[in-house]
Parts: sequence; C-alpha cells; structure tokens
Amino acid sequence: MRDLNGRGDLCCINTATLGYREAIETTAARIAEQGFGWITPWRQEIDETKPQAAASAIRAAGLKVNAYCRTAYFAANDAAGRRAAIDSNRRALEAAAVLGAPVLVAVVGGLPPGSRDIDDARAQILDGLAALQPAMQETGVRIALEPLHPVYAADRSLLNTLDQALDWCDTLDPSRDGHFGVAIDAYHVWWDPALMPAIARAAGRILALHVCDWLVQTRDPLQDRGMMGDGVIDLRRLRAAVERAGFGGPVEVEIFSRLDWWARPADETLRICRERLFACC
Amino acid sequence: MRDLNGRGDLCCINTATLGYREAIETTAARIAEQGFGWITPWRQEIDETKPQAAASAIRAAGLKVNAYCRTAYFAANDAAGRRAAIDSNRRALEAAAVLGAPVLVAVVGGLPPGSRDIDDARAQILDGLAALQPAMQETGVRIALEPLHPVYAADRSLLNTLDQALDWCDTLDPSRDGHFGVAIDAYHVWWDPALMPAIARAAGRILALHVCDWLVQTRDPLQDRGMMGDGVIDLRRLRAAVERAGFGGPVEVEIFSRLDWWARPADETLRICRERLFACC
Repeated sequence: MRDLNGRGDLCCINTATLGYREAIETTAARIAEQGFGWITPWRQEIDETKPQAAASAIRAAGLKVNAYCRTAYFAANDAAGRRAAIDSNRRALEAAAVLGAPVLVAVVGGLPPGSRDIDDARAQILDGLAALQPAMQETGVRIALEPLHPVYAADRSLLNTLDQALDWCDTLDPSRDGHFGVAIDAYHVWWDPALMPAIARAAGRILALHVCDWLVQTRDPLQDRGMMGDGVIDLRRLRAAVERAGFGGPVEVEIFSRLDWWARPADETLRICRERLFACC
Repeated sequence: MRDLNGRGDLCCINTATLGYREAIETTAARIAEQGFGWITPWRQEIDETKPQAAASAIRAAGLKVNAYCRTAYFAANDAAGRRAAIDSNRRALEAAAVLGAPVLVAVVGGLPPGSRDIDDARAQILDGLAALQPAMQETGVRIALEPLHPVYAADRSLLNTLDQALDWCDTLDPSRDGHFGVAIDAYHVWWDPALMPAIARAAGRILALHVCDWLVQTRDPLQDRGMMGDGVIDLRRLRAAVERAGFGGPVEVEIFSRLDWWARPADETLRICRERLFACC
C-alpha cells in the first residue's frame, strides 16, 4: 500500500468538493496551490463548445486531469430522450479527450419519470452505454461505471453495487479490452457485505477511487457527505483493498456538502482535504 | 398470486404506520374496525412485564398477531452492552410468545459508537443472534432477519441485502429447522439488482412481507416513507415473486411517515392503507 503522507502528487480533487463556485481557471489554480497533482472537473464548469481553454488553464496550473464528470442519465420515456442522452454523452467523451481526461465517469440515472419498471430502465441504460462504444474508440476515452449508493436508485442511479457494475463491464466489454471499467467511491460502497470480494474481482478494471466519509447523522443524503475522518468508513482498509487489486491512480476527494464544506472558504476546504488524505486515507 | 381485493383478512397493519400515538387497545380496535385481520405491534406499546393485557385486547378486537417488532441492536463497545441487548431480546421473545406472535422481527443495529469496524460489528450481531437460540426453542418464537436499506447501515442495520440475510440464515440455521427466516420489506430491498434470485432462494424462509413505497423526493430517509402507490416500487411484482417462493402470510403495511401519514387521523390512514393494498399491491 502506498504511503500518501506528503504525496499531494498522488492526490486528486474532484471539483464537486468545492461546489463549482468559481471559474475552472481559479479552481485549478487553488488546487495546484495546495499541492495537489490532479483535478477532476465537472461538465458545468467546462464550455464544451471550446474545451481547449479549460484544458490550457488546467495544464498551466500544473495539474493532470484524472477524469471528467459525468454522463447524462440514460433512461427516458421516449426514444428522443434516450437519443439526447447518448448525444450528450458523446459530447462529454469528446470534451474529455480535449481536456486530457482518460476517463468519463458514468452516473447512469434512475427511473424515467412515472416508471416503476426497474428492469426496463436498467436495460435502457445498458443500451445507451453500448451505443457509446464507437465514440469511446474514436476519442480513446474510457468510461468508468460508478455504482451509486442505493439511496439514489430512484432518481440518480440504478447501478447500485460494485458487483453489478462488474457484471455490466462483462456484458459491455466481454473481451476485456479496457473500454469499460469502474469507479469505486467509498460513500457508495462502504456498506456492501460483498465489497471485499467485489474489489478483488475488479482487478484490472478500477479506473478511479473516490473518498469522502459517511456521517452517522446524515442530514441530506445528497449533499451532506463528510470529510474523511469525520464518519464511519474505514478508508484506509478500502484503499488497501483497491491497491491490492492493482489500482495505481490518484486518490480522489469528492465531497458533496452544501451544509458544511461548500460553505467554507475554498482554500480552507482544500487544506483540510490534504490533511485528512494524509491522516485518514 | 392471491387476489387481495376486499381481503382485509389477508392484510396486516404494523402499528408503526400509525406512529404509536394511542394505547394498543385503541389501535387494535381501529385496525379491526377497518376490516384488517392482523396486527404487528411494537415493543414500546407493550408492557413486557405483563403482556397478557395487550394480548387479551388484541384477541378481543378479533385480530391475529403477525409478528412483534423488534430486537434491540446487538453490537456494542463492551461485553455488558452486548449482554444487555441479548437479555432485552430474550424478553422480547417471551413477550412475543404471550402475544401469540409467531415471529420476532430482528432489526440488528449498526456500528457501535465510534467504531469503523464493519466486519467486527457484523460478527457481534451474528454472535448475539446465535445466543438467542435457546430462548427461541423455549418460546417457540422464530426470528425474522430483516435486511434494511443501506442508507441505515451506519446506525440501524448492518444487515443490508436479502442475500446477506439468507447467508446469515445458513450460518445460524444450517439444518434449516426454521428458527431463523427473513422479513422482506419492499422499502429496503426494491433497488437490489440481485433481488429476484434472492427471493427465489428465500423459499421456505420468508416469515413476513412488508409494504410501503419509496418516494422519489424523500425528505427524510427514516420517516418519510410513502403510501403504496405514491412511489416507484412495483409492489405487485414483488408480492408475486414472494408468493411464488411459497409465502402465504398476510401482507403487512409498515409506513414510517412523521411528515404525512402519522399527522393524519388514524382512521383516515387506515382507510387509505386498505384501498391501496387492494389497488396497488
């Protein structure tokens, strides 16, 4: 297991951690200033008609791009809605390539409005992912399927366990050519009784590792995630397992926290991320 | 699949649905008045030093007892805490027997305060359940392991999927003598990609079926559960699968809803439960 202490070059900030409050140029400069080597930006920060500007600013700050967040939701009540999601996700792959992001993170979406047909929605999502394969080949950008905590199943993701994500990889990429992999986020998977064997099974397919913490008194399931060390997740054990499975990328902090960390000065949040990465992860 | 329409005798009200707002005698009378055949009371409604009084009132109302809710949480930071939980749960088994409840529902609890050791907490829970076996033999009351939604993993239950519950049954009851089974609650399991095969696997071990609904805009993960039909769960499909697996008990409504159904007149909540059981389950 790698020693993270003092190794900001092994650490990444996902810009969701700062709440997208400033222009990407400013955010990138702050992240670099705090000694991090990597950034994962979100689409709402990037002008996808000319992503070269953001790419240059990130490079000028001295940061590498770990991944790009995230896909539009795939399932919809009509074919036009499904096509629109695929088109949007193609544009995301193209922007990711310009940004130098090797990976697009897939948050796949929940049920279409009014639907209770979970199998049909999951089939639509798989079809949508499969339709992106030509664009993945053209851009060279891989897709990391990110299982989300089951609390988000209805409206944000019907991909809810690491085993399910690996089953989908097997379906989408039976030859294991590497186009599809997984993103493992501590917040989403920590509770899973099948987690440790699933991480071993994921060897060779782990494209990202996200950390934050689960607060016992969660006030808002979406935007009250905790700083590493403030909750109940054994983050060091998780990272050890992920590294045993061969993962060698940066450890990425992603904290949705409208109620706490987004409300603090950005530099303070970054400084504490750095301290906690070294102390708790 | 049974036709529920008009069959209140196949339906049960878990008293959590009414928010424990009145004495059990009054609650039982209301439930019977609305045409239900079954009740599942909670411990806070029962004086466990003399449960005979409640037993008589429930019988006098013409109701049968489907189950008794619920175990104290098993994991603790010291042996005294673990013993106290086991003692409490023995008392619950004894009270269940007096009430005529064939089943005690196990909500197993989360991590002890300050702990991040999920494996150790789960081991403690299993030890605690195993320690109840003599009392289960003496009382003739079975334990239904209820997997809870992973949103409750930290503080309420580290038993989070139906497969995990069945694995625990295999461990606790390898000869399948029937002392341990499972309670399947739509709210907790609906999202699980492995649900349908797990229900088939549960054949012969399903001791209870709970229904309510998952609201897309959940305001409070604990106490904002929805009335059947108001959310995204395909309850009829779930019941069909559970009945295909051999379950023949009553369909039990359990709705924690501080924000809506607990605030309405009890008779109104019961009347709508009845309508929705017939229309949506």
